[in-house]
Amino acid sequence: MLAVGIIGGAGYTGAELLRLLAMHDQVSVKTVTSRDYAGIPVGQVHRHLAGYYQQTFVHPDEDLFKNLDLVFFATPHGVSMNLVPDLLAQNVRVIDLSADYRLRDSELWEKWYGGVHTSANLLNKAVYGLPELNRDKLLDARLVACPGCYPTAVQLGFAPLLTEGLIDSSNLIASAASGTSGAGRKASLSNNFSEVGENFKSYGVSGHRHLPEIEQELSKIAGQEVKVTFVPHLVPMVRGIQATLFASLKDNTLNLQSIFDQFYESEKFVQILPRGVYPQTRDVRGSNIVQISIERPDNGDTAVIMVVEDNLVKGASGQAIQCMNIMYGYPEDAGLDMLGLNP
Amino acid sequence: MLAVGIIGGAGYTGAELLRLLAMHDQVSVKTVTSRDYAGIPVGQVHRHLAGYYQQTFVHPDEDLFKNLDLVFFATPHGVSMNLVPDLLAQNVRVIDLSADYRLRDSELWEKWYGGVHTSANLLNKAVYGLPELNRDKLLDARLVACPGCYPTAVQLGFAPLLTEGLIDSSNLIASAASGTSGAGRKASLSNNFSEVGENFKSYGVSGHRHLPEIEQELSKIAGQEVKVTFVPHLVPMVRGIQATLFASLKDNTLNLQSIFDQFYESEKFVQILPRGVYPQTRDVRGSNIVQISIERPDNGDTAVIMVVEDNLVKGASGQAIQCMNIMYGYPEDAGLDMLGLNP
Amino acid sequence: MLAVGIIGGAGYTGAELLRLLAMHDQVSVKTVTSRDYAGIPVGQVHRHLAGYYQQTFVHPDEDLFKNLDLVFFATPHGVSMNLVPDLLAQNVRVIDLSADYRLRDSELWEKWYGGVHTSANLLNKAVYGLPELNRDKLLDARLVACPGCYPTAVQLGFAPLLTEGLIDSSNLIASAASGTSGAGRKASLSNNFSEVGENFKSYGVSGHRHLPEIEQELSKIAGQEVKVTFVPHLVPMVRGIQATLFASLKDNTLNLQSIFDQFYESEKFVQILPRGVYPQTRDVRGSNIVQISIERPDNGDTAVIMVVEDNLVKGASGQAIQCMNIMYGYPEDAGLDMLGLNP
Amino acid sequence: MLAVGIIGGAGYTGAELLRLLAMHDQVSVKTVTSRDYAGIPVGQVHRHLAGYYQQTFVHPDEDLFKNLDLVFFATPHGVSMNLVPDLLAQNVRVIDLSADYRLRDSELWEKWYGGVHTSANLLNKAVYGLPELNRDKLLDARLVACPGCYPTAVQLGFAPLLTEGLIDSSNLIASAASGTSGAGRKASLSNNFSEVGENFKSYGVSGHRHLPEIEQELSKIAGQEVKVTFVPHLVPMVRGIQATLFASLKDNTLNLQSIFDQFYESEKFVQILPRGVYPQTRDVRGSNIVQISIERPDNGDTAVIMVVEDNLVKGASGQAIQCMNIMYGYPEDAGLDMLGLNP
Repeated sequence: MLAVGIIGGAGYTGAELLRLLAMHDQVSVKTVTSRDYAGIPVGQVHRHLAGYYQQTFVHPDEDLFKNLDLVFFATPHGVSMNLVPDLLAQNVRVIDLSADYRLRDSELWEKWYGGVHTSANLLNKAVYGLPELNRDKLLDARLVACPGCYPTAVQLGFAPLLTEGLIDSSNLIASAASGTSGAGRKASLSNNFSEVGENFKSYGVSGHRHLPEIEQELSKIAGQEVKVTFVPHLVPMVRGIQATLFASLKDNTLNLQSIFDQFYESEKFVQILPRGVYPQTRDVRGSNIVQISIERPDNGDTAVIMVVEDNLVKGASGQAIQCMNIMYGYPEDAGLDMLGLNP
Repeated sequence: MLAVGIIGGAGYTGAELLRLLAMHDQVSVKTVTSRDYAGIPVGQVHRHLAGYYQQTFVHPDEDLFKNLDLVFFATPHGVSMNLVPDLLAQNVRVIDLSADYRLRDSELWEKWYGGVHTSANLLNKAVYGLPELNRDKLLDARLVACPGCYPTAVQLGFAPLLTEGLIDSSNLIASAASGTSGAGRKASLSNNFSEVGENFKSYGVSGHRHLPEIEQELSKIAGQEVKVTFVPHLVPMVRGIQATLFASLKDNTLNLQSIFDQFYESEKFVQILPRGVYPQTRDVRGSNIVQISIERPDNGDTAVIMVVEDNLVKGASGQAIQCMNIMYGYPEDAGLDMLGLNP
Repeated sequence: MLAVGIIGGAGYTGAELLRLLAMHDQVSVKTVTSRDYAGIPVGQVHRHLAGYYQQTFVHPDEDLFKNLDLVFFATPHGVSMNLVPDLLAQNVRVIDLSADYRLRDSELWEKWYGGVHTSANLLNKAVYGLPELNRDKLLDARLVACPGCYPTAVQLGFAPLLTEGLIDSSNLIASAASGTSGAGRKASLSNNFSEVGENFKSYGVSGHRHLPEIEQELSKIAGQEVKVTFVPHLVPMVRGIQATLFASLKDNTLNLQSIFDQFYESEKFVQILPRGVYPQTRDVRGSNIVQISIERPDNGDTAVIMVVEDNLVKGASGQAIQCMNIMYGYPEDAGLDMLGLNP
Repeated sequence: MLAVGIIGGAGYTGAELLRLLAMHDQVSVKTVTSRDYAGIPVGQVHRHLAGYYQQTFVHPDEDLFKNLDLVFFATPHGVSMNLVPDLLAQNVRVIDLSADYRLRDSELWEKWYGGVHTSANLLNKAVYGLPELNRDKLLDARLVACPGCYPTAVQLGFAPLLTEGLIDSSNLIASAASGTSGAGRKASLSNNFSEVGENFKSYGVSGHRHLPEIEQELSKIAGQEVKVTFVPHLVPMVRGIQATLFASLKDNTLNLQSIFDQFYESEKFVQILPRGVYPQTRDVRGSNIVQISIERPDNGDTAVIMVVEDNLVKGASGQAIQCMNIMYGYPEDAGLDMLGLNP
């Protein structure tokens, strides 16, 4: 059994790691930390886990991580960078769900996240944990930086066309929408039900933290600089991300459907929908599956790609477990073999 | 023009007072206070009011209230009791939407709200602002304590039967449900959309602050001690309160429909629905109207009364304006002549 | 492998049977019927099942059921009663999620559901499929009538007190609330999002089809006639049922918490929450678990019991699979070992 | 008093006309038709109107329209075209909220709406009822075709830039989102709460009926052919439309904020938000106001314009009343002087 720890277990991605790992038969969760709830049973904070976890949250300062094989960070940004160097030195592998190791450029990180990056030297050693586009590098990864929820959707949507150089990479447009759970489990006026219910709005239009990550990774895929206009929106729902992507096609005679079918042919967690069927977030709720459709309206030059995922699963904790499965040679869907909850 | 001030204008009941008073042609809002937003335009915090109010929030400590005719308190409990004595002394009338003057008994107040009541001597001078049951006393009131949202619904529902002594007052049951706006405009984990969405739960079952107020007022109506079991629930919606009330009838041959029809015959804001039609919160959303149905299932001994209101209007700011209209001899529906927003 | 069929696979309970059975390693779904979607792949109608079921809906008239071991009916009422006699004659066992065999009295059935009951002689042979209260009879059942969603919650909540005769059974009150999925997957104005969203209402107050079933079964438990006033409400959410139950205690010195703890001590799917913690529907969403709290407000004579379940799982398809597991000697949680989806 | 009739008064736009006209002191609603509810009181179908309308729905076949000054059509497409010629002949003016007279080209109409257009000769006589862009023509209009909800938002957003030729009109992108009330008051599986709740999806991507209307009108504004890629989405909320528009700027040194401020300077119902403040649907709910923001992310060449409106008010019935006010010389905001309902 793999001995794992979860740092930051009181939040939604922490809880989701626990929900999914409870179904994984080769993993044992040894340690779950929380500053706010140290000493309180996990099942009391997360009552949906009550029958499955008997343990108690512990304070992260305790010297608990040495004997673990693997640690997941489900913390806000700025936490993992202070602990990761020690963990790696003690031969503990790390999967970081936070933003600390996603950007290669520490200045860029500091511009968007503030403060000084305290382990910038590791930025180039971290493996970007998007298995469908980076599986090889994950096999022997010691430090994995899991992508954010929006970047996962946007990258998986643009990748088939960018890889082959089929679209104008200088002017991509991503209009995306997320449920509220992406903002985390915390008190917040702007995420109060009274503010979000019966409401729809865009946010972060002048610049969103996920944009540099998106452009960095898409540029790698394209082999040239990629420029994205990214507008996220907040939807009055809890779970789910939808990205509607627009790109100018260089050649409008291509069979886009078959390009996508082939690109993701062997991927268990990516489903390309039949022509004319568009994805909806509910079909992947609670599951690690991404559903994608592609359309070319009016047979024109603009490709429209639609992508849905569960932001807490494929956009966070499910993806982290998928990375772990690859790192340890488990079946890639161990603990992740679950259907969407619909309705 | 009546010169009014609103203390605590940044919250939902404050904003709702502003929304409604904008339609009142005999009132001018001179002063709107907010500690958090002092110096910021009202229309920037409440963008739905942008075209209607040019003024800026001011700090409540400023000496601004003397020249006003009337002040509304839309503050949390514990605020108005410190300011009201001075205002009354300066001949400013007060309508308090908070809980400070609702209970007659200061010990009871201190038990449920904590701390010491600093102007307990005024408790017996405050008029309880439920016009349908207390209109006469409002005519020359100088200090009005507006009822909470649950108490308004529960009292209006039980009153016709209690007044006539038709039910067993020792064992009333109120199962009620509220949207989230009743909890106010503030950061809160438990009111985060991610916590409330797709969820339904009861709360405060062992004891809710509104219960002593309900029992105090119902006992007055009944002329004897009334005992209520009160269970509130939280609904994933923003506005609206529904109360489902249960009472044991002393005589099951009465025509309950006609008792209710007559009791509220001359009330503009109370609509008794036809037999077999049950109320829904959406029909009174944004309006000051209460809709009530009465049913006697299986022709038995239990009366079921269903009441809906908009918690921010008839359950708060609309009721406060209705009280004002009575105090100043305006038409009772001035500023309140608006239909429910449905759908 | 047990060969099972699902009659009525296009609705929500049919889809939910498919979702759960995909995780059951001793069952193979051989046949899924739908009149409306015959010839169409299951995964096209239920896209969340796309990767798991390759088969196509078939028309129920086809002669497909003989070789099955077990058939689930996930049909509207009035369907199974016409097919069940033949199936039983062919030695196919039946679990009926519809109302056709829930009532013992065919006249009562005809009053509430309309039309003539065509296999009334089987009513007394059907086993009522509420395992926690009826497990013994399920062991060799050939025809199981699964309870409705409200009756499951109401019975599990009242059972511990009724069994011991601790409450006045002549005047029970159940104020319950359901998400919209209980109304099924069909076009309906009253379930249109525009009608249900931002709205809360009661319905069926003068009489609801689930009430005779509730009273029939509670009377069996109590050993005497039980009378319930039952008021259901519609909540703007998709999944979940909450029942708030009120009963007059004969003795107010009892330790209700420990009575409930003991009554459900060995039940895997019933969790009694710690004192003062109240259940919420989200904690059991997607799972077969029921969570229950008990409170005695103000140390009085009224017990308040709160029960939550997922109406499509423990209130329908999960319970049906639990019954199947008992009938065939599988672990009772086979296919049902899943945590609630929260948030 | 202007004598008006509403044909199709049972739907959401019909109800919304009634809600708004109740506040208009120069209009008297003489006739409200409904095929489904003929003979039933208006206030029984629309209970939020109960205290304001005493009349009963009448069948539209009755000879009731002759004595009216003005008729509103709040019907599905294909209805008004059969009645309008007669009404105009009888000197009754018409404001049509349906699609029948929006397109200039009958072939285009027939392609998107099906069937034969029976009064195609009137297409060129109808005035397109978007006051901010077409006010002059409305002054003496006899037949007004009110824009659809999406076209209103998209046109008001692009107009300031297109009018001046500041953007590339060959490749505009509109990613828009609507609440469910846009689909009307009718039974529908795809609009069932269980299908829409906790879900987000795009639809009509290959082609939406509103697209030809958008392109026709934007081309008029631009003075050249305009091409739009239009992707609508369905949001789990009842009211509101948000459009996020993308356009390539010919010159990225312009002050877009001031261009928008000036363009709508004298418009009562269009509010340009301060820089960096983005609109949300809730701020205009129930009101006729449109709020617009403009942003140029990363100081680049792409303009992002965000527009919100209430689809039933400015996107339908409010706009129709605004047109009426212009046609009859009433104050443009008569009956429309109401604030958004927030929260």
